[in-house]
Amino acid sequence: MLKRIRKRPKEVGLPPGTLISSREEKAEKVRITIMHYGERELEEKDTETIEECFPSREKPTVTWININGVHHIDTVEKVGKHFDLHPLTLEDIVDTGQRPKIEDYENYIFIVLKMLHHNEKEDEIQAEQVSVILGSDFVISFQEREGDVFDPVRERIRRGKGRIRKMGADYLAYALIDTIVDNYFLIPEKLGEKIESMEEELITNPTPEILQAIHTLKRGMTFLRKSVWPLREVVSLLERGESELIHESTRIYLRDVYDHTIQVIDTIETSRDLLSGMLDIYLSSISNRMNQAMKVLTIIATIFIPLTFIAGIYGMNFEYIPELKWHWGYPLVLLAMVAIGISMLVYFRRKKWL
Amino acid sequence: MLKRIRKRPKEVGLPPGTLISSREEKAEKVRITIMHYGERELEEKDTETIEECFPSREKPTVTWININGVHHIDTVEKVGKHFDLHPLTLEDIVDTGQRPKIEDYENYIFIVLKMLHHNEKEDEIQAEQVSVILGSDFVISFQEREGDVFDPVRERIRRGKGRIRKMGADYLAYALIDTIVDNYFLIPEKLGEKIESMEEELITNPTPEILQAIHTLKRGMTFLRKSVWPLREVVSLLERGESELIHESTRIYLRDVYDHTIQVIDTIETSRDLLSGMLDIYLSSISNRMNQAMKVLTIIATIFIPLTFIAGIYGMNFEYIPELKWHWGYPLVLLAMVAIGISMLVYFRRKKWL
Amino acid sequence: MLKRIRKRPKEVGLPPGTLISSREEKAEKVRITIMHYGERELEEKDTETIEECFPSREKPTVTWININGVHHIDTVEKVGKHFDLHPLTLEDIVDTGQRPKIEDYENYIFIVLKMLHHNEKEDEIQAEQVSVILGSDFVISFQEREGDVFDPVRERIRRGKGRIRKMGADYLAYALIDTIVDNYFLIPEKLGEKIESMEEELITNPTPEILQAIHTLKRGMTFLRKSVWPLREVVSLLERGESELIHESTRIYLRDVYDHTIQVIDTIETSRDLLSGMLDIYLSSISNRMNQAMKVLTIIATIFIPLTFIAGIYGMNFEYIPELKWHWGYPLVLLAMVAIGISMLVYFRRKKWL
Amino acid sequence: MLKRIRKRPKEVGLPPGTLISSREEKAEKVRITIMHYGERELEEKDTETIEECFPSREKPTVTWININGVHHIDTVEKVGKHFDLHPLTLEDIVDTGQRPKIEDYENYIFIVLKMLHHNEKEDEIQAEQVSVILGSDFVISFQEREGDVFDPVRERIRRGKGRIRKMGADYLAYALIDTIVDNYFLIPEKLGEKIESMEEELITNPTPEILQAIHTLKRGMTFLRKSVWPLREVVSLLERGESELIHESTRIYLRDVYDHTIQVIDTIETSRDLLSGMLDIYLSSISNRMNQAMKVLTIIATIFIPLTFIAGIYGMNFEYIPELKWHWGYPLVLLAMVAIGISMLVYFRRKKWL
Amino acid sequence: MLKRIRKRPKEVGLPPGTLISSREEKAEKVRITIMHYGERELEEKDTETIEECFPSREKPTVTWININGVHHIDTVEKVGKHFDLHPLTLEDIVDTGQRPKIEDYENYIFIVLKMLHHNEKEDEIQAEQVSVILGSDFVISFQEREGDVFDPVRERIRRGKGRIRKMGADYLAYALIDTIVDNYFLIPEKLGEKIESMEEELITNPTPEILQAIHTLKRGMTFLRKSVWPLREVVSLLERGESELIHESTRIYLRDVYDHTIQVIDTIETSRDLLSGMLDIYLSSISNRMNQAMKVLTIIATIFIPLTFIAGIYGMNFEYIPELKWHWGYPLVLLAMVAIGISMLVYFRRKKWL
Repeated sequence: MLKRIRKRPKEVGLPPGTLISSREEKAEKVRITIMHYGERELEEKDTETIEECFPSREKPTVTWININGVHHIDTVEKVGKHFDLHPLTLEDIVDTGQRPKIEDYENYIFIVLKMLHHNEKEDEIQAEQVSVILGSDFVISFQEREGDVFDPVRERIRRGKGRIRKMGADYLAYALIDTIVDNYFLIPEKLGEKIESMEEELITNPTPEILQAIHTLKRGMTFLRKSVWPLREVVSLLERGESELIHESTRIYLRDVYDHTIQVIDTIETSRDLLSGMLDIYLSSISNRMNQAMKVLTIIATIFIPLTFIAGIYGMNFEYIPELKWHWGYPLVLLAMVAIGISMLVYFRRKKWL
Repeated sequence: MLKRIRKRPKEVGLPPGTLISSREEKAEKVRITIMHYGERELEEKDTETIEECFPSREKPTVTWININGVHHIDTVEKVGKHFDLHPLTLEDIVDTGQRPKIEDYENYIFIVLKMLHHNEKEDEIQAEQVSVILGSDFVISFQEREGDVFDPVRERIRRGKGRIRKMGADYLAYALIDTIVDNYFLIPEKLGEKIESMEEELITNPTPEILQAIHTLKRGMTFLRKSVWPLREVVSLLERGESELIHESTRIYLRDVYDHTIQVIDTIETSRDLLSGMLDIYLSSISNRMNQAMKVLTIIATIFIPLTFIAGIYGMNFEYIPELKWHWGYPLVLLAMVAIGISMLVYFRRKKWL
Repeated sequence: MLKRIRKRPKEVGLPPGTLISSREEKAEKVRITIMHYGERELEEKDTETIEECFPSREKPTVTWININGVHHIDTVEKVGKHFDLHPLTLEDIVDTGQRPKIEDYENYIFIVLKMLHHNEKEDEIQAEQVSVILGSDFVISFQEREGDVFDPVRERIRRGKGRIRKMGADYLAYALIDTIVDNYFLIPEKLGEKIESMEEELITNPTPEILQAIHTLKRGMTFLRKSVWPLREVVSLLERGESELIHESTRIYLRDVYDHTIQVIDTIETSRDLLSGMLDIYLSSISNRMNQAMKVLTIIATIFIPLTFIAGIYGMNFEYIPELKWHWGYPLVLLAMVAIGISMLVYFRRKKWL
Repeated sequence: MLKRIRKRPKEVGLPPGTLISSREEKAEKVRITIMHYGERELEEKDTETIEECFPSREKPTVTWININGVHHIDTVEKVGKHFDLHPLTLEDIVDTGQRPKIEDYENYIFIVLKMLHHNEKEDEIQAEQVSVILGSDFVISFQEREGDVFDPVRERIRRGKGRIRKMGADYLAYALIDTIVDNYFLIPEKLGEKIESMEEELITNPTPEILQAIHTLKRGMTFLRKSVWPLREVVSLLERGESELIHESTRIYLRDVYDHTIQVIDTIETSRDLLSGMLDIYLSSISNRMNQAMKVLTIIATIFIPLTFIAGIYGMNFEYIPELKWHWGYPLVLLAMVAIGISMLVYFRRKKWL
Repeated sequence: MLKRIRKRPKEVGLPPGTLISSREEKAEKVRITIMHYGERELEEKDTETIEECFPSREKPTVTWININGVHHIDTVEKVGKHFDLHPLTLEDIVDTGQRPKIEDYENYIFIVLKMLHHNEKEDEIQAEQVSVILGSDFVISFQEREGDVFDPVRERIRRGKGRIRKMGADYLAYALIDTIVDNYFLIPEKLGEKIESMEEELITNPTPEILQAIHTLKRGMTFLRKSVWPLREVVSLLERGESELIHESTRIYLRDVYDHTIQVIDTIETSRDLLSGMLDIYLSSISNRMNQAMKVLTIIATIFIPLTFIAGIYGMNFEYIPELKWHWGYPLVLLAMVAIGISMLVYFRRKKWL
């Protein structure tokens, strides 16, 4: 169900800052969107070559460059040169096996995030790396694939709705992070629905398939938790950090994002507890049913074995078995057998074994 | 048994500060109570429109505005504008899926709490969000529904009993928080009574229903714990915080509330331990009873199987079985069977299997 | 076995500082002992009315007022007024459901402790709340019931033995706390003896009663641990606190008390580990015995079932069964049966199932 | 599968700084490689006697002395004298049972690392101690055995590729540590492949061998984790330390190494979780299969036992059993038997025991 | 196997500093060894009365007084008076139930350590308390019994080997602590050997005795861990402490001791993990063998029960059973039985129950 975190592809001993993409589909085109905006102006451009984006950097507005396709190493390198990014930053952008983290370089802040999708078709949680670089008046965001996750933010900028047009680059970075964190809420919700539907089945019909499903969901939750914990740290560092790139007024919003990550963690923990509880219930209900069966079956055997023994006695071929000659022998034996059977049943019931 | 924490309804990507109520029953009326009081004066008003409350704010007394019904977004927005509240504060008041938290804005402190009720009818723990805003000379409290939880505080203000009339808005906020924390004591108490009544049943008659009940109670305790832990943090931050809105004399009272939250946590932990112990006892008593049954049943089978074999031997139809001709054959065989049975019983007893 | 921590009796919403005793036996008399002492003088008084104690406070000596019976609210209130105690302090003295804690008011330190007795008759650990108020030249101690726990301290003051007469009120408070911590050593010791006696029984005769006893002891240990942990914190805060009421020379003694609490915790942890180990041994020895029984019984059944089948074959009434006519048929079949039985036994033994 | 950490060979009570090698193969030759390099110059030497290395130390370049074979105590002592190393440093270099650690002496930093190899032939994780001494303009590295682990670094120096030739000794030390940490990625990867291949087998054919393999892999993971945790601490101390030997520009690279160690830890934790999950699945699938078998087998027995009893009844030799005379007696009994068998099957199926 | 930590013998309520020995064998003689040494001079004395040691204290050298036999209270008191030790220090020296700890009095440092021996004869880990008092120019060490644990240090002083004669009293204290920590390595080693020898037995022949042995070893490891943890803290406090009695040059050596304690802890943790793993393997191998047996036995029973039923049918005495008259009846039934048996075997094997 889970797409494992990709193994680190860098070969041992390569110098740091060597750009090696973890993705093979290099044929895919890169797509670059650029937005310049201030309180009144707004300029949008869609392009495939990065050079077109650079001249516009001089205007006293906020510039947002969004690059879909980090496998296009050439583009990343040009961006790095233009914005004077550290080679290690570039390496981390391209190698998509990073954990969420935040790094404060002098002239910019580098943030690595994980976007999570729940792929319905393959019933798989997919993680995509999103890197955000926050400078004094620009934000550059890198996505692995084409995706419309940032569309609502773009829409808000276009409409001039809310605060976004009046505030700086740090608020834009906040908006992007907030959008990603909001996405995190969707997955535990979907998994939660599955859990609830399973809960009923668990009581009516506990099968090994459900057990398997519980294990899979638990693994999904563990995966989620591992993704969210470093995210929480990232947001916390961003909020409390000393960087001058983040204005005081934006920190209040980051505190809000931080609360959201904690809420996500809470939801995940609750789901994990629920799953653990379901596992316990499953196991005890399975063992309960098994015990029920074994008990009844054993009791049947136990009652008939002595009776069969009695029948065996009078099946012996001794010449002198006086009872065999009695006229009422057979009915008496039958009666005795019924009596023994009933008294055993009574005994078992009194002992509460039945 | 538990009402799950509500899922966050905000749609992904909406700008922060968008007010969307989590409740659907928007038809319900909002009810606003306002109290102005100083050491000597006291003024009370009940209203449904928020505008009536505002003029009175200028008097040099403490103003307490209590608003039942946070779904009435219009009212919340007017309050926000009048008291100059941050949009994120308003969002958190209206979205009732928050965790207990405290946020220190410059001119006011925003506190989110959870009121817990144990709904007897549905045997359900219900959580209601209560938001408290503490300003220099006013307190605004928001409740989700109509409720009389703050009535004792209101009564104390009316009677002028205790310190409340002589002290400032911070003391009023303390009184509200204290009232909510006091309510927390009721729930572990009620659950505790259930636990005790179950404990006896557990020994006399361990059924799967009790197992189910233990699991449910355990989940209830986990839910409680998750609600109380952040509350503890809230109170601690309030007590140790640097805000000038809290006077030194009020901090001593907050320390008292803090002690109470720790007592609640203690009680919950004790209950959880008790439940874990009960689970162990249940499992071992079930398995003990099962083993008892299986052992006795197996022993019966084990004794009669060899005896039946002997009977089978003399039931064979060979022409030349000398024993069959003996006059004392039958009684001798019976004697032998009794002897074998008794010696097996003795052996089993000596091995302590019986 | 355990007396649960009392539920908090204060009704929801009462103003703080309302004195409500948790004990019902209000008829019981209060007993007040007062000691004034300096390096050379010593004055003792036994009384039932608190007013008699007050005039003596002016002398330049240490005053120790010990009050047995916190249910006598009137007395507690008078003390509170005379010594200028905070209402919350009085509330905590009277409500005996407190956790051990320490609170530093400006002019005095308020310490709540738990005295533990192991009531032999009811085999119950009983907790009694002892509150100590340490002022600049006085110590007031409150006990729930009559008791002679502080007699050794009294005796040391009388005899002028040791340092106690030469030092101040803080040393007296230390002596009282030390006496209580010394008492803590007795209970794990007594429980420890029980554990050791059970350990032997466990190997010779594991019964469900022992399981029950282990669970009870474990609960006792958990209870103890919960009482000692906050105590440790109290002593630590007292030692490291900045209050001027504690002299440097007394801190060394408090460090000693701190070491003792850690030793108690250590002993408790060791006992808990022992109990957990015993539980494991119990379970594995029970299951081992069970398995032994089941195995032997099953093997008996397994050997005789095929033999019985053979006997059944020759018990069939077909007209043409040639073997039945053979003269050596019967002995041959018997031989074959013995051979089969023995070879099965050999096989089982080789497989180590026997 | 694991090579245990070697026991400390130093005899009790020896003075500190006594050099005793933990390796016995003292016959093996020591091999020393020396590189002097600056931005433009480069000098390489291969030797077996340490004295040849020393004169070159005076040049204003970076000197890297790599010594393969720490068992050659004489060489280590000469290095220690020449570079003025503390006796405890020398002891730790020679005694290869150290944990990864970092020690800041005034004039140099001493770093102990563990190189991990996965020896394919013996399916064993082997640990080799690598000690690195970082001075102001030199780096000395000690390896236990001949090995080419640092070859990529050597190659980078030779080619002048990357930053390495332009930067100081601290960057070289970073490069060495980075190389070692990169190696750490290989082992969880290899173990991970094993885990995946086992996962499939687990479902198709759970055998005790797989259980054994899971346990072995889990132990391997525990071993790995124990090696990586102190490494993480070492790198963290190096990055945040106050030593002047580490330049600000190198710290950014160390932060990168730190991230890598956290990634390794993450991978290990994920693998451990997977293994735990597999263990659970194994156990439940084994017990499930077992239960399946037992159930079916028990049911067969349970159905035939009553039937055999009926047959036994009509095998009795009483003279007056009227049914035996009936013409349809036999078919009727057979019919009754079939009816009983079928109704039992139906009952069992309805109870879901089948 | 373990000697429990001794119960605290002090009676409740005694004043602090009362000296009560925990040992009963007071008849044993006390043995005092004294060494004065400087870089050039060395003076040794063996005595039984403490007074002889005192005059020599005035010389400007290091004085080491070693006292075997802390039960001789008189001697301890005289030492206390001469060196001006705090009464609590004396109490802790005499009461040998202390945890390892360090206490910084103004003019001396008091260190309590535990020496561990593995008594081969009784297969028991024995703990002896060693107290060390470090003053500006003297070290006093107290041992419970005669013992030669410090002989290597004495020897180093005599021979003037190593640094010891050139350095101060703090280095001597370090040497004593190092000797004790070195001893700690021996015990996990010995226990480790036992573990390895058991590991093989576990696979070839898992018996309940091995289970018992694993539990005992685990308890031993727990005991060890509890002894080493506070030791680690003691050494850490000594190294980082602010006392002027410890010179900077000695701190490096203490850091080395600290590393050793961590190595001991590591070894213990590894052993504990191994033991836990062994427990798991034991349990699963026992249950595996049990299951194997039960399965085969049950299958035998299951195959023969239907066959016996068939035999029972043709053992019935009905007058009209046509099959009984058939000439090939008997061989046909036998054939049918064989066919049924084989087809059941095939079915079981296909289901992998066999």
